[in-house]
Amino acid sequence: MNPPPSHAPLTTVRIAVDCMGGDHGPAVTLPACRAFLDKHPAAELVLVGTEAGLAAAAGLPRTRQVIATEVVTMDDAVEVALRKKRDSSMRVAIAQLKEPHGGEAGHGTAAAGAGAADACVSAGNTGALMAVARYVLKTLPGIDRPAIATVMPNRQDRYTTVLDLGANVDCTPEHLLQFAVMGSALVAAVEGREEPAVGLLNIGEEAIKGSETIKRAGELLRQAGAAGHINFFGNVEGNDIYKGTVDIVVCDGFVGNVLLKTSEGLASMLTEFIRQEFTRSPLAKLAALAAMPALKRFKSRVDPRRYNGAALLGLRGLVFKSHGSADAYAFESALARAYDAARNRLLVRVQERIGPTLAAMPGSTAAAPQQAA
Amino acid sequence: MNPPPSHAPLTTVRIAVDCMGGDHGPAVTLPACRAFLDKHPAAELVLVGTEAGLAAAAGLPRTRQVIATEVVTMDDAVEVALRKKRDSSMRVAIAQLKEPHGGEAGHGTAAAGAGAADACVSAGNTGALMAVARYVLKTLPGIDRPAIATVMPNRQDRYTTVLDLGANVDCTPEHLLQFAVMGSALVAAVEGREEPAVGLLNIGEEAIKGSETIKRAGELLRQAGAAGHINFFGNVEGNDIYKGTVDIVVCDGFVGNVLLKTSEGLASMLTEFIRQEFTRSPLAKLAALAAMPALKRFKSRVDPRRYNGAALLGLRGLVFKSHGSADAYAFESALARAYDAARNRLLVRVQERIGPTLAAMPGSTAAAPQQAA
Repeated sequence: MNPPPSHAPLTTVRIAVDCMGGDHGPAVTLPACRAFLDKHPAAELVLVGTEAGLAAAAGLPRTRQVIATEVVTMDDAVEVALRKKRDSSMRVAIAQLKEPHGGEAGHGTAAAGAGAADACVSAGNTGALMAVARYVLKTLPGIDRPAIATVMPNRQDRYTTVLDLGANVDCTPEHLLQFAVMGSALVAAVEGREEPAVGLLNIGEEAIKGSETIKRAGELLRQAGAAGHINFFGNVEGNDIYKGTVDIVVCDGFVGNVLLKTSEGLASMLTEFIRQEFTRSPLAKLAALAAMPALKRFKSRVDPRRYNGAALLGLRGLVFKSHGSADAYAFESALARAYDAARNRLLVRVQERIGPTLAAMPGSTAAAPQQAA
Repeated sequence: MNPPPSHAPLTTVRIAVDCMGGDHGPAVTLPACRAFLDKHPAAELVLVGTEAGLAAAAGLPRTRQVIATEVVTMDDAVEVALRKKRDSSMRVAIAQLKEPHGGEAGHGTAAAGAGAADACVSAGNTGALMAVARYVLKTLPGIDRPAIATVMPNRQDRYTTVLDLGANVDCTPEHLLQFAVMGSALVAAVEGREEPAVGLLNIGEEAIKGSETIKRAGELLRQAGAAGHINFFGNVEGNDIYKGTVDIVVCDGFVGNVLLKTSEGLASMLTEFIRQEFTRSPLAKLAALAAMPALKRFKSRVDPRRYNGAALLGLRGLVFKSHGSADAYAFESALARAYDAARNRLLVRVQERIGPTLAAMPGSTAAAPQQAA
């Protein structure tokens, strides 16, 4: 892999926050912003919301307010978010990215427009957020489809980054390669692992080594690995996500969404079963008292709020999606992930990686536009 | 749904056991057979294995031995199992199904050949087992592709049956319909739920409601539901498996395999984390003593050994696959599942359901051969 140009961290990072998104809106987002600002002295926030929604934000330091008159609800269809609510807090927050503040597009300093931001965070509904972000920002040169990436905890007490999680139900081998490259940039920026290992999600049975798409994707990823564009480990299976076999697991959005939801469902069932067993009888409740410290440590170790914040990758701007049901602690995690990504120039990193990778692919249509980026 | 013809349980059930399969072979399978026979007085076993392998089986009641000279190992390629090892315990055990003993093919009594059996159980490798079973038994009329079905525990303290789990990586909508029908027959036979609810696994985001295959499968399943051939619930998501929203979740084999392996990986990680937290310090170990009864109840509730035994559906014979790593308790569960399926005439049930369902589909090629079944 070629030595990267300057990845020097931004000295200040400005994040646009859709304060109205999610199940709870400002009741959650504003306390999260306050806590986040306390811990990140180099951060500035652009709070986007209705006048009423932002009333409680008065007095927050390093903060600017931008008023939007509409709110995309969790149930709004994509079309409504896209065509009807043109002054929604979601859209206005995303629009802050069009003029990056901190040098992502080469500005280099904090001199850009006062409303400009380096990343945007919203807890609004995923379909709407992706559609609006794609419409407002467009995709990066060389990227056909944006992808959604999140992390899951693994047995190494680290995180496994998985993408795509639902933006693309039918993927070509080329899309999966792009996901691998974008995922590598994300992990390099956010986790500080410059050569993260990439696995291609497949199934392990002898007779059935994956669909034609997966086989071809395996070839592309192997080529990209051999050329030093990514660190390709090979095929992995579902259990490898939690083993921590690789840093990044690449799959199509249908499979990724299913495995994410299945994991959530299983974790929630197991947690509920543990609760039930420790409240089944007075004796069990006594045991629960003794077990509380261990159970609490266990719970905190797999607390999904700690790693809330999925990245929408492949757009000309950094958008992070918080769980809709996030509480203030979880939303703060999403802000922190966006902060780390922007600070470590994720957008530059994606562009630096995607160009050479795609240019090296025979017959790639992405090679030419990439040169202009 | 039309009232079924006689589903009267078989009075005796004969199961062919591949005693050599799995990681441990006879050391696990024979103790499991003994325990199973103790609990199932109406069961008879045909033990298939090498002479040395079956030496310890002497004296088992209601048991007949069939000697095979070869063993399919867990690492053997499908081709080896299929073409080289023609006298393997796996193949000989499956061949016992060619002349059903208990009336599945209309014999009606226990008068058939002494080696004949109603179901077969093997812990051998899945790829080889499916290939050999398919080669020896052939598929049922109206079934294009056999599928692998297993159960997962859910929050209702029941089981959710999921198929396919890896036999078919690329499925057409018609295949998914066949899976729905076979899964319904399985749940009716084994769990005693005559009109089990079927869900089609999909992803929930607004903008992205599944691939074209899934959409078309949804239409087919809806039609089959409207005609009373299955009890179609609609789309479900990954978390619904563990919620117990439906009795049966239908998906292609790639997705099914990923969700199964992901679940195994997550459950294993969480179990390991709990163990670590309860052994972290002397105090935690003391707490573990107090918590032991609750933790044990929890563990037993989700113990995968209890529901070991995946069904290979769509073949002209009932084949059940045990986990390769099964211990005697787990292998006994697989025997019990095969016993329940055979006793309640799963093969007849599949054939009764598949014919009318496929005949009702416009342009179905399966309708004609079905009449002859």
